[in-house]
Amino acid sequence: MDEKDISRAVIRRLPRYYRYLGELIEDGVERISSNELSARMHVTASQIRQDLNNFGGFGQQGYGYNVKYLHMEIAKILGLDRTHKMIIVGAGNLGQALANYVQFEKQSFKVIGLFDVNPVLKGLSVRGIEIRMIDQLESFVRENDVEIATLTLPKSKAMEMADRLVKCGIKAIWNFAHTDLDLTVPSSVIVENVHLSESLMRLSYNLSHYQKEHPQGGNTQ
Amino acid sequence: MDEKDISRAVIRRLPRYYRYLGELIEDGVERISSNELSARMHVTASQIRQDLNNFGGFGQQGYGYNVKYLHMEIAKILGLDRTHKMIIVGAGNLGQALANYVQFEKQSFKVIGLFDVNPVLKGLSVRGIEIRMIDQLESFVRENDVEIATLTLPKSKAMEMADRLVKCGIKAIWNFAHTDLDLTVPSSVIVENVHLSESLMRLSYNLSHYQKEHPQGGNTQ
Repeated sequence: MDEKDISRAVIRRLPRYYRYLGELIEDGVERISSNELSARMHVTASQIRQDLNNFGGFGQQGYGYNVKYLHMEIAKILGLDRTHKMIIVGAGNLGQALANYVQFEKQSFKVIGLFDVNPVLKGLSVRGIEIRMIDQLESFVRENDVEIATLTLPKSKAMEMADRLVKCGIKAIWNFAHTDLDLTVPSSVIVENVHLSESLMRLSYNLSHYQKEHPQGGNTQ
Repeated sequence: MDEKDISRAVIRRLPRYYRYLGELIEDGVERISSNELSARMHVTASQIRQDLNNFGGFGQQGYGYNVKYLHMEIAKILGLDRTHKMIIVGAGNLGQALANYVQFEKQSFKVIGLFDVNPVLKGLSVRGIEIRMIDQLESFVRENDVEIATLTLPKSKAMEMADRLVKCGIKAIWNFAHTDLDLTVPSSVIVENVHLSESLMRLSYNLSHYQKEHPQGGNTQ
């Protein structure tokens, strides 16, 4: 099967498989059956088999899955087998929270710069990462082959900033601004939106409609 | 159609409709056809009609949609027609970023308390919201009828905290910890997970597979 045909839903589950397999490795588990994995992940065993078959299976009849191997293969599929250089544009609370989150680095996303317009922040650093002024953005991105830009800016600034980032060759934008960037960003640039308000609205929807009638809202991300 | 049968995908789109309609109101647009709305949202017109028909339509032949009315009706569907009292457990950068985000309040999520274990933060406040020590959690939740708890804690603490929150009657958990809470939380309690790492992995997947072959990864939330 051509990977390009793989559905959003599968791609949405892969990082979860990766996380659960990582936990199994931490727990010293070397191999697992799709049934055990399914029980642990609350996904049916056949769903797991189907999902993984999109990428050529990895399971062995009667043996199940080799946890380390599967974890490594999923890492490759997710593009975690190489380091991605990332900057964060907007060094407020959210930007700093993301810069502080060491987990990303373990997953091969390396934050190498923080940018802001606020002169008060100039020269400060978060977890050893310097906060630079926004006028240095273009040169920094070009000189350091930055691949991913995280936008933790107000909606009003996000479009213009996305435009600047695209012009200096950024390949992907991780967007936390409360707006979509479709209009600004060409289709060759990957945009992944994290709309926190929308997540909260899904929670509220589930709160009003599903409570006590339905399993938990669950991971709609 | 019974609302309980409405698919995740529709629920995932509703907050986007709500956001776009909000922007239309800001722009002074009073009515819009499903075609115009579709052009603006990059969703097909028939998709929009289908989605809204789940809730009884709201459109009028030849007139289209009354923007304010539709915005208000979607607000009701999403449970935004009443205020939800929320606390944030974990007053680090992320917790403070969320507390500072005024947008939530406009959407009727009112943050009334922040909690942490770090004595240094005791008595400080963010946007007028006091940071309290965690030993006050139970009494505060009960006395203030807190409905939603946001968990911005390390993975290691999240399960235990979810358990405490469930015991004191919290109705929903907005979980930012890098773990699922299924094992701890009964199905009567709504859990909405925001797994930022997984979002970043979807970005990385799209970066490795779709770039220049495919429209942007887009909003997988």
